[in-house]
Amino acid sequence: MGAREAIQIENTLQEGKRAERFSLDLDHIGPGEKRRLYEFMHRHGPGNGKMIFLPVDQGLEHGPSDFFPNPPSVDFEFQLNLAEEGGYSGVVCHIGLAEKHFRKFAGRVPLVLKINGKTNIPSAEEAFSPLDATVEDAVRLGADAVGYTMYVGSPRQDEDFLQFMEVRQEARKFGIPVIMWSYPRGKFADKIHGGRDSLAMVDYAARVANELGAHVVKLNLPKAPKEGRYDPKGPFKRYNDCLDLTQEDELRMVVQSAGRTGVLVSGGSKISDEDLLNKARVCLDAGVDGLIFGRNMWQRKYQDALLITKEIKKLMLKY
Amino acid sequence: MGAREAIQIENTLQEGKRAERFSLDLDHIGPGEKRRLYEFMHRHGPGNGKMIFLPVDQGLEHGPSDFFPNPPSVDFEFQLNLAEEGGYSGVVCHIGLAEKHFRKFAGRVPLVLKINGKTNIPSAEEAFSPLDATVEDAVRLGADAVGYTMYVGSPRQDEDFLQFMEVRQEARKFGIPVIMWSYPRGKFADKIHGGRDSLAMVDYAARVANELGAHVVKLNLPKAPKEGRYDPKGPFKRYNDCLDLTQEDELRMVVQSAGRTGVLVSGGSKISDEDLLNKARVCLDAGVDGLIFGRNMWQRKYQDALLITKEIKKLMLKY
Amino acid sequence: MGAREAIQIENTLQEGKRAERFSLDLDHIGPGEKRRLYEFMHRHGPGNGKMIFLPVDQGLEHGPSDFFPNPPSVDFEFQLNLAEEGGYSGVVCHIGLAEKHFRKFAGRVPLVLKINGKTNIPSAEEAFSPLDATVEDAVRLGADAVGYTMYVGSPRQDEDFLQFMEVRQEARKFGIPVIMWSYPRGKFADKIHGGRDSLAMVDYAARVANELGAHVVKLNLPKAPKEGRYDPKGPFKRYNDCLDLTQEDELRMVVQSAGRTGVLVSGGSKISDEDLLNKARVCLDAGVDGLIFGRNMWQRKYQDALLITKEIKKLMLKY
Amino acid sequence: MGAREAIQIENTLQEGKRAERFSLDLDHIGPGEKRRLYEFMHRHGPGNGKMIFLPVDQGLEHGPSDFFPNPPSVDFEFQLNLAEEGGYSGVVCHIGLAEKHFRKFAGRVPLVLKINGKTNIPSAEEAFSPLDATVEDAVRLGADAVGYTMYVGSPRQDEDFLQFMEVRQEARKFGIPVIMWSYPRGKFADKIHGGRDSLAMVDYAARVANELGAHVVKLNLPKAPKEGRYDPKGPFKRYNDCLDLTQEDELRMVVQSAGRTGVLVSGGSKISDEDLLNKARVCLDAGVDGLIFGRNMWQRKYQDALLITKEIKKLMLKY
Amino acid sequence: MGAREAIQIENTLQEGKRAERFSLDLDHIGPGEKRRLYEFMHRHGPGNGKMIFLPVDQGLEHGPSDFFPNPPSVDFEFQLNLAEEGGYSGVVCHIGLAEKHFRKFAGRVPLVLKINGKTNIPSAEEAFSPLDATVEDAVRLGADAVGYTMYVGSPRQDEDFLQFMEVRQEARKFGIPVIMWSYPRGKFADKIHGGRDSLAMVDYAARVANELGAHVVKLNLPKAPKEGRYDPKGPFKRYNDCLDLTQEDELRMVVQSAGRTGVLVSGGSKISDEDLLNKARVCLDAGVDGLIFGRNMWQRKYQDALLITKEIKKLMLKY
Repeated sequence: MGAREAIQIENTLQEGKRAERFSLDLDHIGPGEKRRLYEFMHRHGPGNGKMIFLPVDQGLEHGPSDFFPNPPSVDFEFQLNLAEEGGYSGVVCHIGLAEKHFRKFAGRVPLVLKINGKTNIPSAEEAFSPLDATVEDAVRLGADAVGYTMYVGSPRQDEDFLQFMEVRQEARKFGIPVIMWSYPRGKFADKIHGGRDSLAMVDYAARVANELGAHVVKLNLPKAPKEGRYDPKGPFKRYNDCLDLTQEDELRMVVQSAGRTGVLVSGGSKISDEDLLNKARVCLDAGVDGLIFGRNMWQRKYQDALLITKEIKKLMLKY
Repeated sequence: MGAREAIQIENTLQEGKRAERFSLDLDHIGPGEKRRLYEFMHRHGPGNGKMIFLPVDQGLEHGPSDFFPNPPSVDFEFQLNLAEEGGYSGVVCHIGLAEKHFRKFAGRVPLVLKINGKTNIPSAEEAFSPLDATVEDAVRLGADAVGYTMYVGSPRQDEDFLQFMEVRQEARKFGIPVIMWSYPRGKFADKIHGGRDSLAMVDYAARVANELGAHVVKLNLPKAPKEGRYDPKGPFKRYNDCLDLTQEDELRMVVQSAGRTGVLVSGGSKISDEDLLNKARVCLDAGVDGLIFGRNMWQRKYQDALLITKEIKKLMLKY
Repeated sequence: MGAREAIQIENTLQEGKRAERFSLDLDHIGPGEKRRLYEFMHRHGPGNGKMIFLPVDQGLEHGPSDFFPNPPSVDFEFQLNLAEEGGYSGVVCHIGLAEKHFRKFAGRVPLVLKINGKTNIPSAEEAFSPLDATVEDAVRLGADAVGYTMYVGSPRQDEDFLQFMEVRQEARKFGIPVIMWSYPRGKFADKIHGGRDSLAMVDYAARVANELGAHVVKLNLPKAPKEGRYDPKGPFKRYNDCLDLTQEDELRMVVQSAGRTGVLVSGGSKISDEDLLNKARVCLDAGVDGLIFGRNMWQRKYQDALLITKEIKKLMLKY
Repeated sequence: MGAREAIQIENTLQEGKRAERFSLDLDHIGPGEKRRLYEFMHRHGPGNGKMIFLPVDQGLEHGPSDFFPNPPSVDFEFQLNLAEEGGYSGVVCHIGLAEKHFRKFAGRVPLVLKINGKTNIPSAEEAFSPLDATVEDAVRLGADAVGYTMYVGSPRQDEDFLQFMEVRQEARKFGIPVIMWSYPRGKFADKIHGGRDSLAMVDYAARVANELGAHVVKLNLPKAPKEGRYDPKGPFKRYNDCLDLTQEDELRMVVQSAGRTGVLVSGGSKISDEDLLNKARVCLDAGVDGLIFGRNMWQRKYQDALLITKEIKKLMLKY
Repeated sequence: MGAREAIQIENTLQEGKRAERFSLDLDHIGPGEKRRLYEFMHRHGPGNGKMIFLPVDQGLEHGPSDFFPNPPSVDFEFQLNLAEEGGYSGVVCHIGLAEKHFRKFAGRVPLVLKINGKTNIPSAEEAFSPLDATVEDAVRLGADAVGYTMYVGSPRQDEDFLQFMEVRQEARKFGIPVIMWSYPRGKFADKIHGGRDSLAMVDYAARVANELGAHVVKLNLPKAPKEGRYDPKGPFKRYNDCLDLTQEDELRMVVQSAGRTGVLVSGGSKISDEDLLNKARVCLDAGVDGLIFGRNMWQRKYQDALLITKEIKKLMLKY
């Protein structure tokens, strides 16, 4: 059976029913999780259940030179103002910025506290992001979710699974939703199995988030495998059937692998207005639950960022 | 003494008594364990004490492409419906799927919560599956057992033993049975001692589960050693006496090594209906306590899977 | 956009406002933190909010030969007397010296208890400083802050993040300010990304302290990258725009990356009076919140150290 | 001074007194330890204070092929029946066998719960046996002692010391005696210092058990060093004076190194009746407190094992 | 400034005051610590505040062949009798010997419980001594101090610092003094920086004990660097000024680096009576607080050991 056929079939279950996807009515969304996700999905952002987040963790993950293209963005006030005026579902940042800046905006802009991270100075061959904050920090600060980076397939994946398990259990205790940044990474994913952004790896990352118990997963858009195809004897050989899929169809597969887990797609490095809107459209057509665009927003000047935000939100309202 | 002779003798103890095997009447099966195992052995499945499980952990262990041969299977509802309609002893899945899907089927389909796992992206040379859930998660969700993967012989076996010990103790506290996926794995098992599926390794895996305190062990069918024989100076040289045993006799040895531990045999990758029924017959003839067939079921279309399920259950009723 | 332009723009936010910097009025400075920082900023030191510290951790970090140029300095009484008579904001030392010497000066000289450290006997390729004391030790001894060394970018950075998180949370429990010695270190920082003192690394270190939640960060003055420039394909390539900046402008960038985190600059190895005063002036012009000069003070004879201390404090009062 | 002279002198202390050895009257044998050791030393076994144990941990340590020479032995009932009928001081097994088989024999056969172990699939170069049960498990099951394997000299010896310390403290809390399997192991012991069974290594192992606080130590009989002598510049060069000692004198030295720690000698792989009785005689002449013979017993047919057991017990009564 | 000049100057602080050294009147000596140190300094030993200890940890650290030169010494009674009759400040041993032998001598001979250790079978390149007992064990046994071995500069120094911190805190809770065996060790100290016994390394070790919070430090006598001098570009180049110092002056420097920490000097391997007395004189002249002589005592016959003990104590009374 070809991949294209698979896609079509995947859209239907036996007896023609579609698989149920992410919503506030799912069994595992308790009252605490629902009350907090409601902020992102209905009280902020476009308001129709779709989410749009403004992440500001790049200063830690990439270093301050990510702010060079738009120097005022080095001050988190820039993004907090943009999130409020632009009506984002929420901002995402680490504990230090949250403690030093969030109180002024509390109640007006929802917060996702990113609770693990790293710098990009060491090699990524054995990537692992240790906790730099806890779910209790998030509760204390009034955050409406925690963000967690899982490096799927890294040689240190085992530590990541354990660390995530504790976060998941702690979050459940407090009714805090967990958003997993699910990123294929490490020497095996990067060098052997098509590269971190290949469909096989991104699809797997979606499933990992689903099976480990994330409420929402943040994914990158899948790309062609680095060598043009997958090892025909390797564990991901079946993805060679998918080499001619459109990016939208690839993303649709990924969304199905995420199952009842909400899907956010990240923006990556800065692209033009037109490309960004196209990217948003592809994602929404493929059925994602939200967008999480950082550098593509705050590397623009403030008014430009506001304008493109409005256009994207307008587009989101069509879904 | 030859292996064949050993087999015959192993079937009898001194004074002609057979070794006692797995049952609900064993001393170490407390009321909690019995009440839960009863679900698998008598209230569901064929109902005569034999068990048949439908595992759905392949999305985590192998990635989503395991669902490509039968696209609707990507949605766990497919397997839950199949388990209910087919009358399986239970389904097996990880925490994320259990939280997102199980409530609807609770009471109608028993659940085995698989509480550790990994992806197959990293090398298996130092295999280790970290916990992704706890026994308390299983209790909370109403699971009737926990599943645990032990990589016997891995260089990280020491961490596995310790992790399992804590699971065993926690499970005992709550009266939850523990099913051990006992898999020889790692560079020593794979490259030196006949390979992960050789009789020597599978036989050892059965004994490890027995000695470490599992209630039930899941094993793969033993195969010939990779190089055709075992190192005549190595620690497993005595298995060279077993090179001409039938698979059924090999499995019978393995069952004896498991002692009073229940034995489930897995189905592995998909095979034809006839081969699958033969495999089931060999296992049951060798005295196993149950079957655990995943891909062989849900990689078939729904009605085909139902049909073969019925045939296997009919066969099981003869034992 | 060139780096010079970036600097100018970074000084202003949208609508011409400057980014708010470190002060006792920030939201995250609770009553305990404020009461203790007040000691450093207003009751001791120049008294105008700027801080000047006398660190004595070199005996542990470098060994006793740092005291050879001025032998009486091997006895911590030398520095405690100097700190009291010279009116420093505080002294910095490890637990052993604090327990053995501080009681006599308690109330007259504030104490920063340095709670992690190491010797310089092992290689620095995988640098990590373990705790040698806890926040509770600091509370018990009446210290007004804890000092913590973070080796940014070290291969063991993950352990450092976790260890720091626990320190941060414990410190918050007791209202104790945390001063982070934020030092790029380890084989990646030293050999690939311009060296531990390059602008890219120091700038990153400032941001790490900011995002991980330090109240104050101690930094080294940035220098030119070791190879003269940064890898034009590496993650820090944008810093090649900064190669012709003055040290003061470089430091200004770093201060902006620290955001609302107080910035202290260290003195390094001993230099002449004139060079030291110039260094202080550059730092203060760039907007730092304080100076932390150790060897440059106590490797001078007592009266010489007193004199230069007075000159530096006089200079600080101009800011 | 030659080794032979040393042996003679070691037998006497100053003023001609012999060193006090293991007994129930030693200061560190509390009421709980005494009550339990009494079972082994007086209520079971020969009854004169000497002990004889039947260990059944080889299924875990070596794999099931240790049972091939006498197939009924794969069922732990074989050994339990033998231990009861033969009147052993106790049986030794891991948690799984204890939970599944011991209840029927409780009160009639004392149990030593072996609480750590490993398989022999991985390399022994960095040997370490993790816990697979706890002292609390032993108390719950009514075991009269715990057994612990220490790999003396392994590169992971540090983990072993720590793990043992916790076992020792926990055992003391419950008054449970600790029997240490003290085995030189790992690349340094095996390749550099004469091999794991050399006198130098076994003597050291005896002292380690003594100094770390074991009540009883299980040792292998010392053999000649692998290269015929010890490195004349190495740390064990003094043992070159012992190269012509008889095995009995070597064992006598080892017993002295064990001090007030009870000494058990293991039987190793199966040997003839005559050799086994000789071995027992050498051990008893050298002053050991007991024997622990596994494969040499249960690799014999049941009646043969009973017979040789009786002969050995008869021999023990002469000491 | 030359090293010789440094020595002279180090003896005086500003205004001609000498640095205060170890005594029972120091601020950090609480009532529990004072009451116990008093035993060593005034109730036992010479009685004038100087201490002399008899250590018996060589059986664990070096193996039983250390007892060959004087076979009765293998029984700890030998040393306990010697300590009582000779009037030592205390004996030093590990938990096993303490539990098995100390009760008889309790009240008559003070005990230092050595709470970490290792064998010398593994390589010392990454030396680390794990705990084999706890401070609570020491309190329970009536020990008057705990002994802890720190391997300064080892690649595993970070684990050592953390482990020591916990010991220090636990000891403080119970008012138990901590004696640190501060030994430069590991591949960096041994191969690069002059060797483990060079002045630079021993001086550093003294400072580490001082800064980490030991009450008393045990050091080896410094020797010339292994290559005749220190790397002139390395971190210890300043010690090249000390190459022509006498051993007494070197030790005097080390004592100054120890500050208010008591200093004990070890005897090392056995030397002649005359050399031993000379060694003691050099140490006492240099200002140490005590001696800790093991093999030099108990490798002598009992009466010889008593005699030399008396001579050394007589000598100590002159200081």
